Amino acid sequence: MDGLNMSRRIRRTPYTGKVEEAGVRGFSVVNHMLLPKAFGTTVEEDYWHLRKYVQIWDVSVQRQVQITGPDAAALVQWMTPRNISKAKVGDCFYIPIIDANGGMINDPVMLKLAEDQFWLSIADSDLLLYAMGLALGRGMDVEITEPDVNTLAIQGPKAEDLLASVFGNDIRNIGFFKYNWIEFQGTQQLMARSGYSRQGGFEIYLNGSHLGPELWDTIWEAGLPFNISVGCPNLIERIEGGLFSYGNEMTRENNPFEIGHGKFCVTDGSIDYIGRAALQKIAAEGVTREIRGVVFGGDPCPTCAKPWPVLVGDLQIGQITSGIWSPRLKKNIGQSMIDRNFWEAGQAIKVALPDGSIRQGNVTALPIS
Amino acid sequence: MDGLNMSRRIRRTPYTGKVEEAGVRGFSVVNHMLLPKAFGTTVEEDYWHLRKYVQIWDVSVQRQVQITGPDAAALVQWMTPRNISKAKVGDCFYIPIIDANGGMINDPVMLKLAEDQFWLSIADSDLLLYAMGLALGRGMDVEITEPDVNTLAIQGPKAEDLLASVFGNDIRNIGFFKYNWIEFQGTQQLMARSGYSRQGGFEIYLNGSHLGPELWDTIWEAGLPFNISVGCPNLIERIEGGLFSYGNEMTRENNPFEIGHGKFCVTDGSIDYIGRAALQKIAAEGVTREIRGVVFGGDPCPTCAKPWPVLVGDLQIGQITSGIWSPRLKKNIGQSMIDRNFWEAGQAIKVALPDGSIRQGNVTALPIS
Repeated sequence: MDGLNMSRRIRRTPYTGKVEEAGVRGFSVVNHMLLPKAFGTTVEEDYWHLRKYVQIWDVSVQRQVQITGPDAAALVQWMTPRNISKAKVGDCFYIPIIDANGGMINDPVMLKLAEDQFWLSIADSDLLLYAMGLALGRGMDVEITEPDVNTLAIQGPKAEDLLASVFGNDIRNIGFFKYNWIEFQGTQQLMARSGYSRQGGFEIYLNGSHLGPELWDTIWEAGLPFNISVGCPNLIERIEGGLFSYGNEMTRENNPFEIGHGKFCVTDGSIDYIGRAALQKIAAEGVTREIRGVVFGGDPCPTCAKPWPVLVGDLQIGQITSGIWSPRLKKNIGQSMIDRNFWEAGQAIKVALPDGSIRQGNVTALPIS
Repeated sequence: MDGLNMSRRIRRTPYTGKVEEAGVRGFSVVNHMLLPKAFGTTVEEDYWHLRKYVQIWDVSVQRQVQITGPDAAALVQWMTPRNISKAKVGDCFYIPIIDANGGMINDPVMLKLAEDQFWLSIADSDLLLYAMGLALGRGMDVEITEPDVNTLAIQGPKAEDLLASVFGNDIRNIGFFKYNWIEFQGTQQLMARSGYSRQGGFEIYLNGSHLGPELWDTIWEAGLPFNISVGCPNLIERIEGGLFSYGNEMTRENNPFEIGHGKFCVTDGSIDYIGRAALQKIAAEGVTREIRGVVFGGDPCPTCAKPWPVLVGDLQIGQITSGIWSPRLKKNIGQSMIDRNFWEAGQAIKVALPDGSIRQGNVTALPIS
């Protein structure tokens, strides 16, 4: 881990002071903002804790692109191959955003707040500028803003009990990828059953930075009986769980089918969107690579800052874009696009690490069980 | 300085291996890519060295947005209030990019490569997505790509002699904010007299990542007689020099007039661009704040990660967005928007630092002499 030089350009969040008090040691930068990534504990300790208890995560980097106005639904639909007319108010929809070639631009969660109001909770690219360009170019009647919303994730099997103790038992009725409204300090706040782990939990889309420290403290104190700890998206858990990271597992070089999201793509011509012709062609021909898990042996692998080639014989058939040691499987695990001829589970492969070592392993399904 | 967690999403550059060999200790993240920010030396040592000798900087984060095609010039013109028809092939134009309200979206240097080919050398926002959105929305006939160009800056008073020793004396004829072509390993490469310092120098827009390490080594070895060192944009030097950083000194909350770039904005109606009406209104009414230098006393100030209020009495009249100790002036220096009634040089102010201390100082012109 190298140092990160701070500046105003890399924005702090309403919770940054809290994570500093909690002893944060490392950050990443997403959407020009700080994402806590390391505390005094190890990734392995956090992994076991997350699977058993509950954690509080500052995921403010999941910025909201708010699109409102008479043409809001039309603009969002134009950006994604998923049929958003099926979304009701209260739904969270995962929507791939693609370019004219079908390449991934972002993979936000869309929250439908009203027929003419949407939040796109984004991964690491300036989707606001893209949406603004489209709207200006086409002369659409929309307003596009980044509201003062900073998301706090409460993740882990004890999240529901913890949040019910704070906000009441009604939150137990929120379905997966649905949201509802909770009251906090006299304000209405959006809470969804969602989050960047497979351990269950919720995300509070806090509207109003000034309420951030108090929300953090409220949940922290209520969480003590549940053995709450401060955490962050856990690399072991998300790789095992088959959760992908834009910029890591996918870039504009990849289409939604390659990351297994073909099910969200309407290619029968019934809706129109940017990149439709490209996706129809891909759907007809089939993809030439698709994301898979990779399990491989040897000592715990280092951080994957640069993709690691995945080989069969001398042929490169993929590249691991996120990898780490799994203490549960006692093996290294990774996520990799794998060429079509080699993507069956069990396929023997080799991984070429940056230290020059070659590790034996095999392709596996995602999630990695 | 906290830690930075590495991943593929935060892209390495062709020179990252070289800066690691040179003992890099800290990075920033710009355009989803690593910008070296600290080495074994101090910012002060680097400052004195930069003013006297020559440095090699990895500024690959200055990504190029390449716009080509029949509508390329029309698209670029639509994005900026500067009249780009005055640019000739071989020119570098600083062009503010603004939104419909006149707010700054980016402030790239435009390189005109041909009548239908432009590079926009960008600051920290995804201008490519904005340009793509505009083009898709309006149905313009352009191609927009990020070419494999990674810029190496050679900065300091000895830069010209050093580069002439490598590429020949013709490079001495390149004018300020002009470019020409040099030969390297049988390839033609673009070199401009430009850079993010006031000490003179050049930037090589290396096209082809595979040539990066060799270009670095070639310049390094030729630079030894000139006392070359590895460096990065120097915070002391750029604050003194009145060079601004997008995301620090300006955001979408600011218009080009506020950063003193009204001279680049055509508001007489002779050209059309996004935000024209907003800029015409601002031009007619005058700005209510404008960027200035601030000099203030006391011990050396910390890193400015969150703006520091600038006060006259109890009234906040500005905020310092970048600040540091100047070893030359033996005072703290900063850059701040200052309200109209207080922006005259000499105005007494106070700066409120995050440790609670209040420092006495005054407004000054930029550059700070």
